[in-house]
Amino acid sequence: MRTRAAVAFEAGRPLEVTEVNLEGPKAGEVLVEIKATGLCHTDEFTRSGADPEGAFPAILGHEGAGVVLEVGPGVTSLEPGDHVIPLYTPECRECEYCLNPKTNLCQSIRSTQGQGLMPDGTSRFSTLDGKPILHYMGCSTFANHTVLPEIALAKVRKDAPFDKICYIGCGVTTGIGAVINTAKVEIGSRCVVFGLGGIGLNVIQGCRLAGANQIIGVDLNNDRKAWGERFGMTDFVNPSEIEGDLVGHLVELTGGGADYSFECIGNVNVMRAALECAHKGWGESIIIGVAPAGAEISTRPFQLVTGRTWKGTAFGGARGRTDVPKIVDWYMQGKIEIDPMITHTLSLDEINKGFDLMHEGASIRAVVVY
Amino acid sequence: MRTRAAVAFEAGRPLEVTEVNLEGPKAGEVLVEIKATGLCHTDEFTRSGADPEGAFPAILGHEGAGVVLEVGPGVTSLEPGDHVIPLYTPECRECEYCLNPKTNLCQSIRSTQGQGLMPDGTSRFSTLDGKPILHYMGCSTFANHTVLPEIALAKVRKDAPFDKICYIGCGVTTGIGAVINTAKVEIGSRCVVFGLGGIGLNVIQGCRLAGANQIIGVDLNNDRKAWGERFGMTDFVNPSEIEGDLVGHLVELTGGGADYSFECIGNVNVMRAALECAHKGWGESIIIGVAPAGAEISTRPFQLVTGRTWKGTAFGGARGRTDVPKIVDWYMQGKIEIDPMITHTLSLDEINKGFDLMHEGASIRAVVVY
Repeated sequence: MRTRAAVAFEAGRPLEVTEVNLEGPKAGEVLVEIKATGLCHTDEFTRSGADPEGAFPAILGHEGAGVVLEVGPGVTSLEPGDHVIPLYTPECRECEYCLNPKTNLCQSIRSTQGQGLMPDGTSRFSTLDGKPILHYMGCSTFANHTVLPEIALAKVRKDAPFDKICYIGCGVTTGIGAVINTAKVEIGSRCVVFGLGGIGLNVIQGCRLAGANQIIGVDLNNDRKAWGERFGMTDFVNPSEIEGDLVGHLVELTGGGADYSFECIGNVNVMRAALECAHKGWGESIIIGVAPAGAEISTRPFQLVTGRTWKGTAFGGARGRTDVPKIVDWYMQGKIEIDPMITHTLSLDEINKGFDLMHEGASIRAVVVY
Repeated sequence: MRTRAAVAFEAGRPLEVTEVNLEGPKAGEVLVEIKATGLCHTDEFTRSGADPEGAFPAILGHEGAGVVLEVGPGVTSLEPGDHVIPLYTPECRECEYCLNPKTNLCQSIRSTQGQGLMPDGTSRFSTLDGKPILHYMGCSTFANHTVLPEIALAKVRKDAPFDKICYIGCGVTTGIGAVINTAKVEIGSRCVVFGLGGIGLNVIQGCRLAGANQIIGVDLNNDRKAWGERFGMTDFVNPSEIEGDLVGHLVELTGGGADYSFECIGNVNVMRAALECAHKGWGESIIIGVAPAGAEISTRPFQLVTGRTWKGTAFGGARGRTDVPKIVDWYMQGKIEIDPMITHTLSLDEINKGFDLMHEGASIRAVVVY
C-alpha cells in the first residue's frame, strides 16, 4: 500500500512529507493507522544529526496512537479495530529481561530495532522508486500507516482521544514512570525536578500523584514557573537568579536535601547537581535526560559512600503492554492531566514547524493529527 | 588515670607508644578497657597524612573490642563488665537518620567526632605534661583504655574472643554489611568483588552467606586467589593477565554482567569498571573503598539510563548497636569465619610493624592484643 509520511532523508535537513510504499504485516506484525503523534526531543536529536547512531533515510516518530487495520500470521493479542499505542520499548514477556522484575528493557528485538529494521531484518517502508526507508525506534509514527511487531503495541481503551493519549507513548510514561517505577517516590517525599519541559512536567505530576510533600522545579526559563505550578510544583528555582551555589540552595530549600531528584534535560553538569542535592544517607537521583554523545557524568565517590544513589531510567521503567493501558485509564479517570500540555496541534504538512516551536521553547508538546 | 597508647603525634611519622592521661567518663560516656584492636587501612590513611581531614596529635584505631570498666552519669544500657565493640558509626536511635530505615549514618555526634572530640567538645586524652590528644573516629582503640559515648558501643556476648571479634568493629561488618544491607544480594546472584584485602574477603564471605551462585574476585596479586577461594570465591581474575578489556571479560564471565559488584580498593578507575561490568537492566555497583582526596568517579550516563545503579556504603549500612551483636553471634555459630583472616597478632609495642605488613601485602589483618 501507499501512505503519507514525513521522511528524514538526511541528517540535519527538514523532514519531507511525501508518499511512500508500505508492505503489509509479516508474521507477528501488525499494520496500524496512526491517528496522532507527538514530537519529542529524541526525534529532533536524530533528525538534527546529533545522534551518533542515527541512520537515514528513516521515518522518525515514536510517540503515537492509532488503530489496528490488519494483523499478520500468528498475531493473537490484537485484532483489526483495536486502539493501540506503539512501544519503542517492547514487552515480549519471554526474554531474560522481561522475566526479571527489576527491568523493563525487553531485549527480544533490540538489535534489529537499533538498525531501523523489523525483527526479520528488513524494512516495510520504501520510496516510490523502491529504495528502502528505515524504521525508527521500532515505531515510525511520522507515517500515517506503519507496521510494528505485536510485542511493541499496547492495546488501550477505545474511548480515549488519540490526539492526547499519543503523548503516553513517550513523555507521559517516561516522566510519571520515573517517579513511580524507578524512584518509587513515597507519600511525603521532597523532590527536585531539573528541566520543566515535556518530561519534567510529567515528573512533577507524577510526584503529585505519588503524594510528595515538596516538589521543586528548576529551570532557567521563568515562563515555566506557571507551567510547573499547574501540575503540582510547590517551589520554583531559576539557577540564574539565586545567589551562590545551586546545590547548597536546594539542600537548604529541602531542609537537608532531596529524597528524590530527577534530571530531565540531558546535561551532565545538571546531572551532577541533581545527585549532589540529594539527601545524605538516602537521597536518590534519577537520570532521565539523554546526554550528548561522549559526555560523562562525574562526582566524588564520597557522595555515594555517604548514602546517595545514582540511577537512570528509560521509558520510565514501564513495561509497555502492561503499564501503558493503566496510564491511559488514569488519564481518562482524571488522575493525571495531559490536555494542557498539548500546546500545539499540527497537520503532517506542518511537522517541521513543530520542531521550530520546540527550539523556541514555545511548545510543551506539539502533536501532529493525521 | 594513666594508660598506654600508640600516639600519632604528627602526620607521616610512626606511632609512638607511651603513657597518656585519660579522664574518666562524663555524662553519657563509658570507660572501656580495650582488649584487642585491628589495624585498618583507614588508620594508615590518617597516620600517613593522606587524609586531608586528619588532625594531630591523636590516638588512632577504630576496630576494637573490650570490657566496660565504668559508666558515666545517665548511662543506662551498659554496666561494668559488659563486653563491647566500639562503633565509629554510632546509633543514637533518636536522630532523623536513625529514625529513617534507609540509612545507618547516625548524625547525633557527627561534628564533634569529626573534630576528634567527645560530644561535649573536649578530649579525654592528654599527654603527661597536660597537652590534649585528640580522639579518632570516636574510638581511639590504639589506647589500652578509652572513653566513648554510650551510643557508640555495641554490647556483645561474653564468650566471644576479643582478638577475633575486634575485626567486626570495621572490616567484617563493612564487607558483610555491604552485601546484606546495601546490595541486598539474593540467592543465586552473580557477584564481582574488586580487591581481595581485609574488606573484599569479607564481601566474598558475605556473598557466600547470601547464597550467591557466582563470586568472582579481582586482584592484581595472585597470592590472593587462594585467600578468595578460602571464603567462597568461585572465579579469580588478575586484570594484568587477561587479554583485552577487563569489563568485557567480566561481562562474558558472568554471562551478561554482574548482578552486584563491589569496589573494595578506593581506586576511582576500578570504581568505573565495577559499575560498567554490572548487568544492563538491573546490575548494582557498590563503592566501599575510600578514594584519595579530590578524586572523582565518572562514566557515561547511558550506563545508568540502561538500568545500572551506583551506590556506596559506609560501615556496611549496619546500625552498630543493633547489627554488630548479631554478627558476633554469626561468628560464634560458625556462619562466618574470622580466624583465618587474622594473620598477625602483635603487642602494642609492635604496632608500627603492623603497618609495614599492610604495605607489604603480607597481612590480611594484623591485630594488636593488649
